[in-house]
Amino acid sequence: MGRTGRRPGQQDTREAILAASREAFAERGYDGASIRLIAAGAGVDPALVHHYFGTKDQLFLAAMQAPMDPAELLPPVLAGGVDGVGERLVRTMLGVWDSPAGSAAVALVRSAVSNELIAKMLREFIFNRILRRVAKGLDLDPAESRYRVSLVASQMAGLIMVRYIIKIEPLASAPPETIVELIGPTVQRYIAGELAFPPVSGRK
Amino acid sequence: MGRTGRRPGQQDTREAILAASREAFAERGYDGASIRLIAAGAGVDPALVHHYFGTKDQLFLAAMQAPMDPAELLPPVLAGGVDGVGERLVRTMLGVWDSPAGSAAVALVRSAVSNELIAKMLREFIFNRILRRVAKGLDLDPAESRYRVSLVASQMAGLIMVRYIIKIEPLASAPPETIVELIGPTVQRYIAGELAFPPVSGRK
Repeated sequence: MGRTGRRPGQQDTREAILAASREAFAERGYDGASIRLIAAGAGVDPALVHHYFGTKDQLFLAAMQAPMDPAELLPPVLAGGVDGVGERLVRTMLGVWDSPAGSAAVALVRSAVSNELIAKMLREFIFNRILRRVAKGLDLDPAESRYRVSLVASQMAGLIMVRYIIKIEPLASAPPETIVELIGPTVQRYIAGELAFPPVSGRK
Repeated sequence: MGRTGRRPGQQDTREAILAASREAFAERGYDGASIRLIAAGAGVDPALVHHYFGTKDQLFLAAMQAPMDPAELLPPVLAGGVDGVGERLVRTMLGVWDSPAGSAAVALVRSAVSNELIAKMLREFIFNRILRRVAKGLDLDPAESRYRVSLVASQMAGLIMVRYIIKIEPLASAPPETIVELIGPTVQRYIAGELAFPPVSGRK
């Protein structure tokens, strides 16, 4: 990525691979989209996909234009266990979004909202890179974990909307630690609180 | 709105008024945007603005393409006072967004995310039609109410994103009452819980 001196043909090939991968990830999910399938969609050899983008993981991040990889940010958040994880999650999220990388993240959300394909990929991204790891890292009850993590997603997505996109004050410019104190307990309750869940198995 | 048999000239005038009003509401806020200013922006007589759209309130709703008016939905929610208001707010919101009117609401959020002008108007809309009324209807401490209502907005906006736009399961298709039970307490805490607020006066 960001290599200089690329010839236009290489650029086209890269773009074709990225487009094919977005479609494949959106249609089949992360697990179902193989490099072989993506290469076929782009009309190139699978080796070329690896050559340009490395692993499927790296291709996924490139296809999402993800400004950072939650898989790298999450281990320290989860390492402390359930105690205080709500505050740590909010603090870590604010650390990324308040940083220069945040503007790329805002751009990603904007595209996801206006483009169904990107929305599907973002959904896949959230599940694979974030929610699944949180559930596993904290050893959540599998019967409840999908509910819990989608609740966490609802508070996090809303914080992103209000602070970075619609910009509603005072949350838009409040100091990060204030937000950690106010919203951390919500996330904590969603992850570890006593919640009355309906049986999930009967629903998709 | 929706009159049949309009001549094209009328349609153009209406569109010009709507465009001028969006700009005025976004730039100056609801209070600062006068009908006179909007009429001048559209190059028409103020009487024509009233003729086509009625009151400033009605023009504002038309300019937002708002599928419903929160000012009409909120009184029953607020009438019960602070007790249980979190659950009532979530239930009322789901009632609108789960209804056929919900797709128009989704369209509105999509435009707001991709268009800065609409985002500014939506911010104004949220403040004027929702947050200000909630704060007043519940008689919240003015020093805290902006924090409280922007926190409520963060949870509501996130629920909208997860349930209707990014569609993360199981929240995307959970029964409304399940969501009321899970998320109502969050909204309740934001409105009426003991929260440690920083002094707001020093910040914008």
